[in-house]
Amino acid sequence: MPPKSTIPDLPQPSTASNDSMLSRKFGREVANYFSGSPLNRVGFLRSDNVFLSQALKHPSTSFLATKDLQPLISGPAKLAWLKFDDIKSVIGEDPYAQTEEEMIKAYDSEKIVPQMIFLGIDEAISGEGKALSYTNKKNTYTGAPYFAVDLTPKGNVKEECERLIKEWDGRGLKFATGRPMDWSAPDAALYAEARQLLDWNARNPFCAQCGQPTLSVNGGFKRTCPPTDASLSKSRLTNAISTTSSTPTPSTERPPCATRTGISNVCFPRTDPTVIMAVVNAAGDKILLGRQRRWPQYWYSTLAGFAEPAESVEEAVRREVYEESGILVGRVVIHSTQPWPYPANLMIGAVGQAVPEGEKIDLGNDPELDDAKWFDFGEVREALRVGTSALGEEAGPEYKEGGLRLPPQTAIAHQLVSSVVNGFASGAAKI
Amino acid sequence: MPPKSTIPDLPQPSTASNDSMLSRKFGREVANYFSGSPLNRVGFLRSDNVFLSQALKHPSTSFLATKDLQPLISGPAKLAWLKFDDIKSVIGEDPYAQTEEEMIKAYDSEKIVPQMIFLGIDEAISGEGKALSYTNKKNTYTGAPYFAVDLTPKGNVKEECERLIKEWDGRGLKFATGRPMDWSAPDAALYAEARQLLDWNARNPFCAQCGQPTLSVNGGFKRTCPPTDASLSKSRLTNAISTTSSTPTPSTERPPCATRTGISNVCFPRTDPTVIMAVVNAAGDKILLGRQRRWPQYWYSTLAGFAEPAESVEEAVRREVYEESGILVGRVVIHSTQPWPYPANLMIGAVGQAVPEGEKIDLGNDPELDDAKWFDFGEVREALRVGTSALGEEAGPEYKEGGLRLPPQTAIAHQLVSSVVNGFASGAAKI
Repeated sequence: MPPKSTIPDLPQPSTASNDSMLSRKFGREVANYFSGSPLNRVGFLRSDNVFLSQALKHPSTSFLATKDLQPLISGPAKLAWLKFDDIKSVIGEDPYAQTEEEMIKAYDSEKIVPQMIFLGIDEAISGEGKALSYTNKKNTYTGAPYFAVDLTPKGNVKEECERLIKEWDGRGLKFATGRPMDWSAPDAALYAEARQLLDWNARNPFCAQCGQPTLSVNGGFKRTCPPTDASLSKSRLTNAISTTSSTPTPSTERPPCATRTGISNVCFPRTDPTVIMAVVNAAGDKILLGRQRRWPQYWYSTLAGFAEPAESVEEAVRREVYEESGILVGRVVIHSTQPWPYPANLMIGAVGQAVPEGEKIDLGNDPELDDAKWFDFGEVREALRVGTSALGEEAGPEYKEGGLRLPPQTAIAHQLVSSVVNGFASGAAKI
Repeated sequence: MPPKSTIPDLPQPSTASNDSMLSRKFGREVANYFSGSPLNRVGFLRSDNVFLSQALKHPSTSFLATKDLQPLISGPAKLAWLKFDDIKSVIGEDPYAQTEEEMIKAYDSEKIVPQMIFLGIDEAISGEGKALSYTNKKNTYTGAPYFAVDLTPKGNVKEECERLIKEWDGRGLKFATGRPMDWSAPDAALYAEARQLLDWNARNPFCAQCGQPTLSVNGGFKRTCPPTDASLSKSRLTNAISTTSSTPTPSTERPPCATRTGISNVCFPRTDPTVIMAVVNAAGDKILLGRQRRWPQYWYSTLAGFAEPAESVEEAVRREVYEESGILVGRVVIHSTQPWPYPANLMIGAVGQAVPEGEKIDLGNDPELDDAKWFDFGEVREALRVGTSALGEEAGPEYKEGGLRLPPQTAIAHQLVSSVVNGFASGAAKI
């Protein structure tokens, strides 16, 4: 049996390049936009503050700055990468000087440090001085490190952030606006990782289990609920002084929290699985598409929705299609997946097939859609040729008013639709 | 083109029956344990308190009681179903008497009501008196409703819960222990839905955005951060009285919270996507399995781990296999999925193939595994025949000490291994 040929090829070309050490030479599935990161995340080194500290200060290290979750860019569709010296005045000489244990012991909820994320290392970069080499027990990891840092002006770093942002603005570095759908695959993937983790930290400053403020650890990939808080000493001291003249030794201890005595998922970043599906009719010659009221006229896409607790992806596909369109789906096959960092989705793309007795459209269950319709494959093929665009943009020059419009190639919806009308559901082996 | 044949069959028989209206007649994929729910969740009715109230009191309605997340059972592997009258003394005459808007306005963080989950309706049940019929705008939904209710003794319902539990105990109804892996598919799926949602509510009594206590709404599928809290009036009144003799009108208003002005995922149940994968070697005749130290001797399974923010499932598979075993995976195909309610996982099962230059096992990156090894397909087929069992149980009578042991048929790991050694990676069309 020849190597690499034991699982047949997929019909679609990749839309994102696969540059990472883990997939550069090997991955052959549909790699959707926002995937295709060039980094090895070396997640097992995130708890090693000696590594993080060396990575932070290495000359090969790059920093992505964000403001209100938008990245600093050096031009249209191009991330700006900063050096340690550019941001030292905000993050300090070494935010990783302490071990996690020491950080937890010294926790002070009133001390605000800008949120940082360790993104990973680019192992395509090597050579003395050009890349960091770090040995952890017996293995050595070599590459150029990447971090993201939130420079939204606030708290005690407000003025310094504002100063830096003004300075960069003078050098032509601005913060992006909107949602990028035309960036290079590596830039899109790096930004996706940074954005999703910065957003998660920003949405979860308090412990959902006990309501107390939490501390970011593990290179930005975990939040922990410390047992003590130095700022309590200050507030308790103030209270004590107001009622007694002696000098007490106020406690810094916080109420107990269940997350301290076991592993709880509320401490870890959240990713919400969603399903997105191209549904074909029983005869295999029509595809179900829907539209939301706020979309441009004639614009349709695949149906989609959040997976619910305790259902399989296949069940979620059937439920969402039924809720939104009334169609009953039988067979479901998963096609490919796409990270979607707005704020934290994992889109699981599937192809489903309606059963003959379940093809009648009914928008009356959950009125989420403005319309849903069966489209002939031929009409869809024509729309893929002339009518695709990003949501805010015009269709191409050959597009004729009234014709079907569809999402761009960087959307997994486009990949699913394209797969289906180009033979995915033909009965031949496609995956 | 004949209907239903446009997407080829999967090689594996279902391990769970598909009883639901949405999949009963149609689903043909591998339906893993904990999927296969017989219910239509009718999620769009969860915000309709008139529906919930009617469902609660209908004679066809069943209640699953839990204590510390364990379900009440009427015998080994059999859920006990209660009626409204059995639990009325704890939940009250009608916990759904108010609309969500009214509940939020009347919010009092000191008032504890047992957590309830609306699971869905069984549409296989119909007929006057035997099933609830409810018309929402233009559609009518008919079936027997199902709820779960947490009867863990605590707060103001502690004594009544204890009394009921003792009474049921006398009738032979006990709470289960451990994790059931041998229940019927419908019972397992119903319990999975109940458990995951009860657990999520229990882990998230506070708003992660602002630290204030939250209110369960939407049939248990959402938590909201109310703008006022009646109990603040009481505490502020107490404080006010201690410092002044006049009678103030204390405010019940809480500090602002960002979740009140937009949609935030922290308000919705959390599901953590995980990857679990059978990895074959480049030649397609060996499979990679690993073991954890706490497992019985000779017991191996597929590798698995949590998906990280902003990576595709395919990337997560490559990263986890690299971290845990050092193996470099090229091609990845998703096989099937399994809900896993301990506490909130969605297991996404995949088959991956190592590249020829990446087959060397290295446990030194992230030392999670006690061992990882390549196994010949022949050895694995024999283990599937004689050496499978649940974790705490003995292998079958034909098993010989020293032979490979594997997880039971109800585990997705078993399904993946079985698929691979029975031809999934042979090049023939299997999905």
